[in-house]
Amino acid sequence: MALAPWRSAIARSLHLNRSLPESRYFQLATITPQGFPTNRTVVFRGFQDHTNSLQIITDARSEKVSHLQQHPQAEICWYFTKSREQFRFHGEISLITADAPSEVRKTLWEQISENARLQFIWPHPKAPRTPDPFPDTPPSTIPDTFVVLLFSPQNVDYLSLKGNPQHRYLYKLDNAGNWSMSEVNP
Amino acid sequence: MALAPWRSAIARSLHLNRSLPESRYFQLATITPQGFPTNRTVVFRGFQDHTNSLQIITDARSEKVSHLQQHPQAEICWYFTKSREQFRFHGEISLITADAPSEVRKTLWEQISENARLQFIWPHPKAPRTPDPFPDTPPSTIPDTFVVLLFSPQNVDYLSLKGNPQHRYLYKLDNAGNWSMSEVNP
Repeated sequence: MALAPWRSAIARSLHLNRSLPESRYFQLATITPQGFPTNRTVVFRGFQDHTNSLQIITDARSEKVSHLQQHPQAEICWYFTKSREQFRFHGEISLITADAPSEVRKTLWEQISENARLQFIWPHPKAPRTPDPFPDTPPSTIPDTFVVLLFSPQNVDYLSLKGNPQHRYLYKLDNAGNWSMSEVNP
Repeated sequence: MALAPWRSAIARSLHLNRSLPESRYFQLATITPQGFPTNRTVVFRGFQDHTNSLQIITDARSEKVSHLQQHPQAEICWYFTKSREQFRFHGEISLITADAPSEVRKTLWEQISENARLQFIWPHPKAPRTPDPFPDTPPSTIPDTFVVLLFSPQNVDYLSLKGNPQHRYLYKLDNAGNWSMSEVNP
């Protein structure tokens, strides 16, 4: 698959904002089974090799996993504070769970810190706070709770707040797999 | 109305992060009429006096306004980079449009800069980029495009990433208008 035309813009933003660790965080919106919007901060884990898909890791026990099983649509809002740019990615998410062997899941597990690994064997997220100490020995194998989300953008809305008026571009993926781009009013 | 118990936490976060202008930005998720999630960065314009409602301003021509007319539910995700805290506010939004006289709308209009006011008389957002220069004389009266969103939280999920394990608290508003709080696993 060819790199999408918005890949150079996001690569530039990541470079311009590289001194800020939080420039690799973005907000992911999903919908509950009842159709209500939800929104949380997640960490960007790079693009999947040879694709335009954004990689995210999460806990199988988190609510977003059950949301995505019913409604795979999601929207990412990624604001870069230093360069004053916003990317909105609209698309669908595929879940990579423990159910099937996966190189992506293995690779991402190897890339995360021991502290990050530990969280996957902690007590159930959002259950009443466990009074006992949390486990502090990282698991030696990949726990079933470790899930990879692959986000495939179908529309990208790029806004640069520099300039007056600001600049805004829309990128769209058509059914044949080709991207088009147009400049719109901010 | 009494201040909700999470008001002291958000006031503290705003104070701790006051050196960063972007600490007053957050991401607002809404749903399209088709039921798809959308997400964008907006600016916090303070709490409405004597309420727990967050104030946001927007353009009547923006897509979020048509989303909210069908689905008033929304979720705010507000991440504070310096203090490493996240607030998720789930609730409903009321639209304050030009249709009815409103003190809140008048007050917020008076508080924004001339540059911010100008945007409400610019060409239609997200239409093909207008080649002519954009209007540069701020309107002398409040344009009909100026809309206030009042977000009333019903659930608040507060996560502090400091500490290992981190700390997470859920606040819920019951039908009688009372807030309860519980600590949960991160």
